Amino acid sequence: MISNKLILVTNDDGIFAPGLKALVNIAKKYGEVVVVAPNSPQSGMGHAITINQPLRIHKVQVFEGVESYECSGTPVDCVKLAKNVLLKERTIDLCVSGINHGSNASINIIYSGTMSAAMEASLEGIPSIGFSLLDYSFDADFDAASGHIGGLIENVLNKGLKECKLLNVNIPKLKKQEIKGVKVCCQSEGNWIEEFKEGKDPRNEIYYWLTGQFVCTDEREDTDFWALSHGYISVVPSGHDLTVYKAISQNKFLEE
Amino acid sequence: MISNKLILVTNDDGIFAPGLKALVNIAKKYGEVVVVAPNSPQSGMGHAITINQPLRIHKVQVFEGVESYECSGTPVDCVKLAKNVLLKERTIDLCVSGINHGSNASINIIYSGTMSAAMEASLEGIPSIGFSLLDYSFDADFDAASGHIGGLIENVLNKGLKECKLLNVNIPKLKKQEIKGVKVCCQSEGNWIEEFKEGKDPRNEIYYWLTGQFVCTDEREDTDFWALSHGYISVVPSGHDLTVYKAISQNKFLEE
Repeated sequence: MISNKLILVTNDDGIFAPGLKALVNIAKKYGEVVVVAPNSPQSGMGHAITINQPLRIHKVQVFEGVESYECSGTPVDCVKLAKNVLLKERTIDLCVSGINHGSNASINIIYSGTMSAAMEASLEGIPSIGFSLLDYSFDADFDAASGHIGGLIENVLNKGLKECKLLNVNIPKLKKQEIKGVKVCCQSEGNWIEEFKEGKDPRNEIYYWLTGQFVCTDEREDTDFWALSHGYISVVPSGHDLTVYKAISQNKFLEE
Repeated sequence: MISNKLILVTNDDGIFAPGLKALVNIAKKYGEVVVVAPNSPQSGMGHAITINQPLRIHKVQVFEGVESYECSGTPVDCVKLAKNVLLKERTIDLCVSGINHGSNASINIIYSGTMSAAMEASLEGIPSIGFSLLDYSFDADFDAASGHIGGLIENVLNKGLKECKLLNVNIPKLKKQEIKGVKVCCQSEGNWIEEFKEGKDPRNEIYYWLTGQFVCTDEREDTDFWALSHGYISVVPSGHDLTVYKAISQNKFLEE
C-alpha cells in the first residue's frame, strides 16, 4: 500500500542508468516518488555545485507513472532544485540516491556524487540514504538486494533517523541467497593509489588521464570494507562534521 | 632562512587569484614552494575529480623564482597531478590551499574546492592546511593575518599534525591589530537558505541560477563561527571520517 509520503530519488550516473530505475521501482512501493536526476553521468563530481552558469530542468517521461525531471547540473544541484524549486511547496520525507554502479564505501563517500546528493538532502534537513552496488557493469543485478533496500527505505520513512543525518549503504556483488544480511558499521580507512595514463592528442599535446586503484588500509572488523568482503550489506550512519574532537584542546593537533 | 622542506601550494580561485599570490609569498619563507593551481576559477567544485576527460598541465611564469603549473582540472585534480606526476620523485612535506576569497567555516568545508584540495592532500598522506579570508573582494587585505598564517605553516612543517589530518583555517575580515588571535575550535552547524533566480535566456528558455545565504544555526561557543564573529582566526582540526559513532550500535540510528 502506498503511503502519502514523498520520496525524492536521484543519482549520479544520470537519468537513464539502470541503477536509478531499480531504485525508483523499489521506492514507489513506499510512497509517491519524484525523480530529479542529472542529464549526463556525474560520477566523481563530489559535492560540486554550479554557481557560474545557469541550470536547466526538463520534465521527462522515463518511469511509468512517476514524475521525473532531468537537470543539467551536478547531483547536488538536482537536490537543491528539487527542494527549492520543483517541490518548494511540499515536504520531502526521504531522499534516496543511487543505486550507484560501484562502491562508495570507505573514503569514497568524499568523491561520490551519489553520496553528495544524499549529503545535500541531509544538509537541507531531509533524511537520506545513498545506495551503491559493488558492480560497475551495465547489466549489474540490482534485484538481489531489493528486499534489504526496501526494508531500509521503509524503516527510515516510518521511524526517521536518530543521531546521524544520512546512511551510506553499500551492497556486495552477490546472489540474493549469498547476502548474509545488513551490518551497521563505520567508514574504513583507505586511499587511492593513483596512476595517470600519459598520452598525446592528435595535435601532439601531452595529456594525463586519471586512473587508479582503491586500497583499504584498515584491519578493523567493524568497518564497511570488512562487512562487504564478508558478504554483508554495509550501513554507515553518517553526518556532516569533519572535526576531529580529540585534537581540539589547544595545540594538541601538533606533534611534539 | 629557507629550509629544505617542499611545500605544495594550490587553491580553487585559479592561478591568478590574489589570495594564491599572498599564500605563495608567505609559504616561500619556510621552504621550497611548487604551485599547481587551476587555470580557471573552481569555487564550489567540492571534491570533484575529472575522470571522463584528459587533463592538461602547463608550466607558467607567475611567481618570481617559484616553479608553477596551471592545470585544466579541479583543485583535487591539481593535488593528484602534483603528487603523482609533477612531484612523483619527491616528498611533499606540506600542502597549503588558498587563501580563499570567502568563508569556508562550518559546513562550507563540504562545498569548498579550497578545502577539498587540502583534504585530497591529506588523503594522500600529506599534512595540509586550507586558508580562507572572509572577504570576497578582489582587493581583500591578505596581509593582516600573514603573521598568523606563517606561524601555522611553520608549526605544521616542523611538528607535523597529530590525531587530525588537516586544518581548516578561516580568517575574519579585520585589520591586523583587531585580530585577537587563533582559536582551535569545532565545525559549527548551519545551512544554506537557497534561492534560485529564475530567468529566460535569449531563446526564451527558462533557466535557474543558484544563489543563497548561509545561516549558522549553532549557538555553541566553541565553534569556528563563534570564533570568527568574535575576532579570532578559527582553526578546525579535521579528518576524513563522516561516521557518526554513537549511532552505530544495531538500529540505534532509527528513531523509535
